[in-house]
Amino acid sequence: MSEPLTIALDAMGGDNAPEIVLQGADIARLRFPGVRFIAYGDKALIQPLLERMEKLRDIVTVHHTDEVVTNEAKPSVALRQGRNSSMQLAINAVRSGDAEGVVSAGNTGALMAMAKVSLKTLPGIDRPAIAAVFPTRRSECVMLDLGANVECDSDNLFQFGVMGSVFARTVLGILKPSVGLLNVGTEEMKGNDAVRQAAVYLRESNLPIQYHGFIEGDGIAKGVVDVIVTDGFTGNVALKTFEGTIGLYSDFLRKAFMSSFVSRIGYLLARHSLNKLRARVDPRRYNGAMFLGLNGIVIKSHGGTDAFGFANAIGVAVDMSTNGFNEKIIKELAIHDPSDASAARAAAS
Amino acid sequence: MSEPLTIALDAMGGDNAPEIVLQGADIARLRFPGVRFIAYGDKALIQPLLERMEKLRDIVTVHHTDEVVTNEAKPSVALRQGRNSSMQLAINAVRSGDAEGVVSAGNTGALMAMAKVSLKTLPGIDRPAIAAVFPTRRSECVMLDLGANVECDSDNLFQFGVMGSVFARTVLGILKPSVGLLNVGTEEMKGNDAVRQAAVYLRESNLPIQYHGFIEGDGIAKGVVDVIVTDGFTGNVALKTFEGTIGLYSDFLRKAFMSSFVSRIGYLLARHSLNKLRARVDPRRYNGAMFLGLNGIVIKSHGGTDAFGFANAIGVAVDMSTNGFNEKIIKELAIHDPSDASAARAAAS
Repeated sequence: MSEPLTIALDAMGGDNAPEIVLQGADIARLRFPGVRFIAYGDKALIQPLLERMEKLRDIVTVHHTDEVVTNEAKPSVALRQGRNSSMQLAINAVRSGDAEGVVSAGNTGALMAMAKVSLKTLPGIDRPAIAAVFPTRRSECVMLDLGANVECDSDNLFQFGVMGSVFARTVLGILKPSVGLLNVGTEEMKGNDAVRQAAVYLRESNLPIQYHGFIEGDGIAKGVVDVIVTDGFTGNVALKTFEGTIGLYSDFLRKAFMSSFVSRIGYLLARHSLNKLRARVDPRRYNGAMFLGLNGIVIKSHGGTDAFGFANAIGVAVDMSTNGFNEKIIKELAIHDPSDASAARAAAS
Repeated sequence: MSEPLTIALDAMGGDNAPEIVLQGADIARLRFPGVRFIAYGDKALIQPLLERMEKLRDIVTVHHTDEVVTNEAKPSVALRQGRNSSMQLAINAVRSGDAEGVVSAGNTGALMAMAKVSLKTLPGIDRPAIAAVFPTRRSECVMLDLGANVECDSDNLFQFGVMGSVFARTVLGILKPSVGLLNVGTEEMKGNDAVRQAAVYLRESNLPIQYHGFIEGDGIAKGVVDVIVTDGFTGNVALKTFEGTIGLYSDFLRKAFMSSFVSRIGYLLARHSLNKLRARVDPRRYNGAMFLGLNGIVIKSHGGTDAFGFANAIGVAVDMSTNGFNEKIIKELAIHDPSDASAARAAAS
């Protein structure tokens, strides 16, 4: 990184704020030496923590505010009443250009509502989507939407495909990412109208999209495609089912090792390799959901993550910014224009 | 079992039919000594196999047919053209009372279409659903619908709740099963109209239902509730995501053990416990999806399962029959009547 990059932090968002937010920034600064932070939140809580983090202190500007968006707040209420909240002020820093991206571990719905209103969507994008990176048997994939839009039409799904594809190219470094639509079967006739029509748009589009076809839920972990497109309801259930199943297996595995003396010895011998396995499926490693489709980089960290997880969320913001993710989306949609979708629609009807 | 019980087998359904169908029956007969079978399919293929299974031969009647429903067949085409198929004839045996239940590893869509037309739905049930049992951190749970209905309204979801609840009581032996609706959050305002309205029906109903509330995807493996209700699109994705994630973890685990000499030794020592773990998450153990809501017991085995898995699918058919699952659903819906839902609807509006 040649130019200094600034990330705005909602220092009060998440279960263990502001501690893990600042500790996360302290880890992230080692990985990204050029980065600077603006931390929004209660100075009385933030300053004493910074006293103990000498090197971080030099690259953080603290912006005081008393107001916080609670986890229970409805998005609409947060929007109206949270104008001076740490979350809103951190988003404002992106809008004003004071920061390149914002990271918050706070209320997801409020963060999305505030970000939509303050930053607006990119030209050609009707609705932003939440995306995250998943480990697969082959490597990793990006899936969207994970919960921003409970109901999606075929235009939304098509746009998610474009955004996911650009993300895979610019951030994951996949030259020609393949895109799949999550469905209840791989045959063309399967699913509802929205996915079937989105399949037509993606197939017929002259954007540089490698459309693979429909994939089923087991295709996520198999790594059948690089980009998985789905509506926010299904995507959220798939994400949480994935996390829950990892937890179940880890729990069964721990109990298996503890079930006899000999298997405990076995565990001790295999411990080093098993720790590496644990790291591969560690949800903290994949922490940092991206809000794609906005005029600005907004990353949502898991509310219950630790400093290591929060540092990874900061890392996603830095990666998206240094790789010029939004610039590439704008460029792509400007050249190829969203009317591609309309053209495909006309061709299909 | 005091009375003899007969199960109709679609001997030609699945990737390795009729071998695994008959081998599965041969395993199942050890577990259920009173059971008898009628196998529908190609006698020229079935008889030579039965020659080698002496004890099974005595309790199987073979009914010859040349016709088979292929995996690629559209349900509507299978319905019209498959009148003499092994699948249709096996279903007919349930309708005529010659068999108490039918098990097929064939085309899911065709099986559901044929079963719906031939057996009809139970009084009070608008649409049948596909259900299956999942392992959880606490014990196990039943989830439905897993793909029969891509789109569901609140009445459908309510009825799935009733059926799932009766299944958990009669087959899983849970005295007061708790019922949860799969959603993108646990707060009341979350989700789409169908789940929010179904929540009202389930909460207000005077059926003996223990409504828990909304659960998220990670609640499946956590065992938050005994019965999970969802539409067929989301349920199918959740089921396959669950299976895919188990596969991913198993794959990573195997690689971890093979990654060094010391961890291989560790594996050898822990092998016995790990095999027990593998059995706990073995998809074959949970093989046998139930088509609930039909006038007859219909079980769909995974197409690619082996004899052990097929035997478990037969076991599900036997369990449902001996526990009088359908009789209990009819009784419950007759006493409490589906107008409960209408009453709740009126109360809610």
